Amino acid sequence: MDADSAQPTQQPTGQPTDQPSAQDGGGKAPLSRRAVIGWAGAGVAIGAAAMGSVAAATMEEKGDPAPAAGAGADIPFYGDHQSGIATPVQDRLHFAAFDVSTTDRDALVKMLKEWTKAAAAMTGGREVGTGAASGLPEAPPDDTGEALGLPASRLTLTVGFGPTLFEKDGVDRFGLKAKRPEGLIDLPKFPHDNLDPARSGGDICVQACADDPQVAVHAIRNLARIGMGVVSVRWSQLGFGKTSSTTPDAQTPRNLMGFKDGTHNIAGTDAAALADHVWAAPGDGPEWMTGGSYLVARRIRMHIETWDRTPLKEQEDIFGRNKGEGAPYGKQKERDTPDLKAMPADSHVRLAHPDSNNGLMILRRGFSFTDGTDGLGRLDAGLFFLAYQRDTRKAFVPLQQRLAGSDALNEYIQHVGSAHFACPAGVRKPGEWWGQALFG
Amino acid sequence: MDADSAQPTQQPTGQPTDQPSAQDGGGKAPLSRRAVIGWAGAGVAIGAAAMGSVAAATMEEKGDPAPAAGAGADIPFYGDHQSGIATPVQDRLHFAAFDVSTTDRDALVKMLKEWTKAAAAMTGGREVGTGAASGLPEAPPDDTGEALGLPASRLTLTVGFGPTLFEKDGVDRFGLKAKRPEGLIDLPKFPHDNLDPARSGGDICVQACADDPQVAVHAIRNLARIGMGVVSVRWSQLGFGKTSSTTPDAQTPRNLMGFKDGTHNIAGTDAAALADHVWAAPGDGPEWMTGGSYLVARRIRMHIETWDRTPLKEQEDIFGRNKGEGAPYGKQKERDTPDLKAMPADSHVRLAHPDSNNGLMILRRGFSFTDGTDGLGRLDAGLFFLAYQRDTRKAFVPLQQRLAGSDALNEYIQHVGSAHFACPAGVRKPGEWWGQALFG
Repeated sequence: MDADSAQPTQQPTGQPTDQPSAQDGGGKAPLSRRAVIGWAGAGVAIGAAAMGSVAAATMEEKGDPAPAAGAGADIPFYGDHQSGIATPVQDRLHFAAFDVSTTDRDALVKMLKEWTKAAAAMTGGREVGTGAASGLPEAPPDDTGEALGLPASRLTLTVGFGPTLFEKDGVDRFGLKAKRPEGLIDLPKFPHDNLDPARSGGDICVQACADDPQVAVHAIRNLARIGMGVVSVRWSQLGFGKTSSTTPDAQTPRNLMGFKDGTHNIAGTDAAALADHVWAAPGDGPEWMTGGSYLVARRIRMHIETWDRTPLKEQEDIFGRNKGEGAPYGKQKERDTPDLKAMPADSHVRLAHPDSNNGLMILRRGFSFTDGTDGLGRLDAGLFFLAYQRDTRKAFVPLQQRLAGSDALNEYIQHVGSAHFACPAGVRKPGEWWGQALFG
Repeated sequence: MDADSAQPTQQPTGQPTDQPSAQDGGGKAPLSRRAVIGWAGAGVAIGAAAMGSVAAATMEEKGDPAPAAGAGADIPFYGDHQSGIATPVQDRLHFAAFDVSTTDRDALVKMLKEWTKAAAAMTGGREVGTGAASGLPEAPPDDTGEALGLPASRLTLTVGFGPTLFEKDGVDRFGLKAKRPEGLIDLPKFPHDNLDPARSGGDICVQACADDPQVAVHAIRNLARIGMGVVSVRWSQLGFGKTSSTTPDAQTPRNLMGFKDGTHNIAGTDAAALADHVWAAPGDGPEWMTGGSYLVARRIRMHIETWDRTPLKEQEDIFGRNKGEGAPYGKQKERDTPDLKAMPADSHVRLAHPDSNNGLMILRRGFSFTDGTDGLGRLDAGLFFLAYQRDTRKAFVPLQQRLAGSDALNEYIQHVGSAHFACPAGVRKPGEWWGQALFG
């Protein structure tokens, strides 16, 4: 199948289409489809990636995304649910929280439409608009270009709307107040919270995950650029090592404390658990959130230097696992069913386990971060915790209240950033846009 | 060959040996050699990595490192030159500049010996000391553990000594003043420099490069931990996308301006060019630097948002290349020999090209960085420039004077951090240590 046969006709609006065009308006050589070139040493499945581009461009009304074919493959953008939630966790993260800087609702809607087209292009391994090297020589390129030649790298872009988009300082900014989900609460203050307002909140978030950080950074940068004059970046966070896995057969990665801590997570393939714990169902809240999910983001700084001076036994008591294998106390293997009574009462695994919380589960998708060193030469490092859930009030809030009150880990961590977003259902087909059901 | 047959006898000092021990002093199950486990999707050459461990442990007096067998392979630690210079550039960087906080020369020497053992272990894919999960339960583990289960990921650790180690505020701190190379100059102030002292200088540097950022971060963290009370981190920098290649047949990566800018670099396999331009030769300076190289590190912030509003033609004029293919002006392919006269006189490629600088060449090894956003919502992003050379006075200094004076790129970049280090020759065999020829 020729790639160009999947290409729709040019839209009359002059906006870039979802698909690359073989034509361009300028005198430059056309470079309408990004060449999918192997990245040295990355073991990219070139054929699969190229196939994926076409599949993503043509698929409509599909359900859960197919498993990734390789590090360079595409994750379908269109679907009932947004990708980047149940999707097998990628290696890298760039997360951005934006504030809306305009009062013009139409400008915001226009930007969301442009964002959606750009997101569909970038997750398909294509450039934004006419690309980085096409168009009029007198105009800035549509795409910033640093991902030119890189495969899609399983890029996903997931959008969410924060409480302040609906109402800020008592003002119904965009006529959305009546549509705010009851579940999109202002998170309560938890014990030990030490939140920095400059790393908290935000009107809109975009989570970019990819196996190549350059691809994730490129995506956020190009969205920020498209949003100039409408939104500005409030804060952003890079993550370099996933700490949870949504693929049960994969190795559980270690966090920066050296422990496996994402073992008992919701599998991205477990439709029943996703329906019970992750996707908002009809009747849960406003109709526009059906099929969506609530995202809690917490920047959790680890007191690395103190932890590193802590005896092994104490470290293991705190988690309720041994460090080498990651096995729960009294067990041999990481995935053996934990015997919670064998663990100290204040151990992290015991307190966080569903059996200690009436079966409560959240889908964790956190990443380690290291943002250099602070003024005292200490690593500014820890866990950027990301969790998706059907109802935050019944999931993160009671769980964190329990952990913040009792968890032995609290001596070694501090929550320094916090945000809450309502992530709507997926964009089902080209022409639909992020937030359409909310704003429409 | 059994891995353990390469294991030397336990040293009587009680220090961790270069090799893992199958024994441990505590009651825990031994976990003396890190299991080399494939990282999902990374395409790890497990056999090659395991072989590499043994090869690295047994090799002595070898020359240039062998080419890497895969993303997870080991780079030999021992050799005439330090690895991490001519080594094919890895995907990720964690660079740290340390200040020595003690006045005790013996404590510093002891730490350098411990660092060397730890570096040999970690670059071989092994844990520091007895590991993260062995040893006495009442004591902190020797290794912090977050790289447990990860392959060596082509980790290299490269050490360098800054001017202030030899003399600081007029004080000959460690009796090294007479051994300071004349070439280890205090870099002059260049036009447009806007250096932050907190991101500049340092007594000692360690460059950690690996294909997995968790491995690079782990290495710097464990060295910092070993150095507690002797050194403290002055500043550190993470890099996520290499911008230069020392393997001429590989794709040249793009910088955050979307351009290919590392095309004409010294190849790590070009022994003649390395001898001419990179390795200090007998008679160049003090004997302890023979076989070493001088490293200049510059944190170069890019004015990303301004660049992104610049017309394509102006962007291309600034570099002297077209953006899509990366070809020099008037040529078709990236690696076509540039016609410098076809480029604007102030273009970056023209000014930096060896033909404009009497054949001057430096080995570039820079990485892109994105450290979130600044207080104004702008990306704090750019190029962490790393360059190795035989004599900085004849290489980086005249080149940067020329660029800082005339380069059209200056409107879009600013140098905000700067450091200079003398990186000695390689550690040739187990028992030798970083800085031995300097301190010995």
